[in-house]
Amino acid sequence: MICNEKMYALGAKRSVIRELFEYGKQRKAAVGEENVFDFSLGNPSVPPPKEVKEALLRLLDGENETALHGYTSAQGDKGVRETIAKNYEKAFGFAFDPDLMYMTCGAAASLTITLNAIVSSEKDEIVTFAPFFPEYRVFTEKAGAKLVAVPPAEGLDVNEEAFRLSLTENTRAVIINSPNNPSGVVYKEEKIRKVAEILKETSEKFGRPIYLISDEPYRALVFEGKPLCLPSFYRDTIVCYSYSKALSLPGERIGYIAVSPLAFEAKDLYLAICGAGRALGYVCAPSLFQYLVRECDTMTSDIEIYRANRDKLFGRLTEMGFSCAYPSGAFYLFMKAPSGDANEFSEEAKKFDILVVPSDSFGCEGYVRIAYCVSPDMIERSMPAFEKLAEKYFGKRK
Amino acid sequence: MICNEKMYALGAKRSVIRELFEYGKQRKAAVGEENVFDFSLGNPSVPPPKEVKEALLRLLDGENETALHGYTSAQGDKGVRETIAKNYEKAFGFAFDPDLMYMTCGAAASLTITLNAIVSSEKDEIVTFAPFFPEYRVFTEKAGAKLVAVPPAEGLDVNEEAFRLSLTENTRAVIINSPNNPSGVVYKEEKIRKVAEILKETSEKFGRPIYLISDEPYRALVFEGKPLCLPSFYRDTIVCYSYSKALSLPGERIGYIAVSPLAFEAKDLYLAICGAGRALGYVCAPSLFQYLVRECDTMTSDIEIYRANRDKLFGRLTEMGFSCAYPSGAFYLFMKAPSGDANEFSEEAKKFDILVVPSDSFGCEGYVRIAYCVSPDMIERSMPAFEKLAEKYFGKRK
Repeated sequence: MICNEKMYALGAKRSVIRELFEYGKQRKAAVGEENVFDFSLGNPSVPPPKEVKEALLRLLDGENETALHGYTSAQGDKGVRETIAKNYEKAFGFAFDPDLMYMTCGAAASLTITLNAIVSSEKDEIVTFAPFFPEYRVFTEKAGAKLVAVPPAEGLDVNEEAFRLSLTENTRAVIINSPNNPSGVVYKEEKIRKVAEILKETSEKFGRPIYLISDEPYRALVFEGKPLCLPSFYRDTIVCYSYSKALSLPGERIGYIAVSPLAFEAKDLYLAICGAGRALGYVCAPSLFQYLVRECDTMTSDIEIYRANRDKLFGRLTEMGFSCAYPSGAFYLFMKAPSGDANEFSEEAKKFDILVVPSDSFGCEGYVRIAYCVSPDMIERSMPAFEKLAEKYFGKRK
Repeated sequence: MICNEKMYALGAKRSVIRELFEYGKQRKAAVGEENVFDFSLGNPSVPPPKEVKEALLRLLDGENETALHGYTSAQGDKGVRETIAKNYEKAFGFAFDPDLMYMTCGAAASLTITLNAIVSSEKDEIVTFAPFFPEYRVFTEKAGAKLVAVPPAEGLDVNEEAFRLSLTENTRAVIINSPNNPSGVVYKEEKIRKVAEILKETSEKFGRPIYLISDEPYRALVFEGKPLCLPSFYRDTIVCYSYSKALSLPGERIGYIAVSPLAFEAKDLYLAICGAGRALGYVCAPSLFQYLVRECDTMTSDIEIYRANRDKLFGRLTEMGFSCAYPSGAFYLFMKAPSGDANEFSEEAKKFDILVVPSDSFGCEGYVRIAYCVSPDMIERSMPAFEKLAEKYFGKRK
């Protein structure tokens, strides 16, 4: 083979999630859409808030088409960045600097650009908390560093001791993701405070700051409590945001990076982010959707639908005997495979046309991820299938 | 500095083009918009065809918002790829395979993804023809290879002998860009045939195919003759396309990669492209604009405006004594600096509030690039300033 073999391997081996999704499509064609319970993909099922369409139509009916669809500056339209900073300050009381914000093509771009800006040696390590989104490994390795996973504590929470041990003089950054994909767990304020404390101590110990990359595509999807402002806990924080889930626009690829103005060498890091964006081929984030988020930054799709799904699914599944960490956000349940073998359990579930993703690629063995961003109706219809699956493992209920 | 220094340097040193553009903005604020003749940026001035807005409104008024803004498959919506392949076949008589096409966030993404899929060793070399778009160097080096520039022949044409000499056993790909940015030159069919012949011979000599990457953002902007179908001249061709200029949508970031079905290990290369897209953080091309190009793929903004600009500018400037290669496409004139010093000439032009980009970063010393994708009115208004500039170098005309 004369092309790049690593890239070939990444293209040839589809992610487990996509694999299952494709299987689901075939199965639906065979037995009927309504008989397959596809919980494989994190594709929002709730439509965007109605203001999204209104704003898009308004923008398209505005005067200057050439400007609307024209290049913005590489870091994104300044007015857009100013609006987002203002809204963030209103919500969290923390002031971002629009000149340290960079509009991106969504969360994946936010992460790859940030990692490529930070990583500078192949010895560099990026630490993250298991379970984690599998692409973290792909992005980190492509940026030239090694991903180090911290095993979770009870309840899929942050394991402080394991975290402390995972940090070395090669650690350049830590990726944290709360609400978490795949577990739906929201880390509590005390935990975040503890993470910040450990990072501060370790940075001092090694005489070199460790950046905290807060990957926040699910920030708007918190059911209990309020989302946290990580830059107010830890100085050297970079927020990576995406509107994909908050506004149900995952195909449109729009998000941002915000370097905390308090961060070590914030201005240099920001310029490295601009340079990495340029070198990876990101000329500017899609312009129409930049202007759209200026209008809709503070809105959220109707998360009550996700909450109701969560309540029903979590309630019924635990009643049946399954066990899950309590998911306070996002739209995922991370359920223990009763046998301890995630692949076996996922295969068994398939026999009842339930599609759930085995957890190995999430860095955490023995679970399956259930993406409940589906219609409430499908959840209801899936219950008898789950009952049968439970029976298989736990016997008939009295 | 603890961030990546190369990325920092790329972010800190803005491209000369952007630098000049920012200067222009300040100068306009100081002396009035109408008194600055800004030819720095390749930002289309002609609005999109009216069908673009119509199609966007129709798509937004369609039924399923969740699908419209939802993830497509990573390589792009299949129906979109099929339509583009069908249109290409109708126009050029060459059949692409939709399963070897990959929708991208525009030309820069098409190139970075392709280069990252091909490059596999730091000894790898990518050859291109000077003058060339400066980001070729940035993209190539980030992908881990070395850019080799072939000096031009008379009239900024392909220099066959120099091309042959530039190819080594380390050459992995050749980037060709016709119509050319920055020269506006369109390479003639005989030249393309010759390039293909040299590539074929060299591939055979080294026992390993060299891919031809045809970077075609200006394909729709040809004033004399017809655009060519490069895959019909050379087997191992990859077409990198963008709708930015053809549909005047540069901010929206939409384009594609098409691997020729005849190319060596086409399927493997395509999978490496899918892998590279994934590793660089390109989840899918913006979905609304994917569906938009399905509707508008065969349309073009009104290029007669660019042609008229070209005629007037080329005619008048050569009359004044300046000399340019004849630009049959795109919207650039590449003009010789009368003193031979591009930077001196660009600075001199600034004194008359004419903003033109010095050519050094295009791999070709002693020229300036004039982007004439501006209003016809501005060209008319700039004439007295050009007259004064000419006088400075050539004396008063009789």
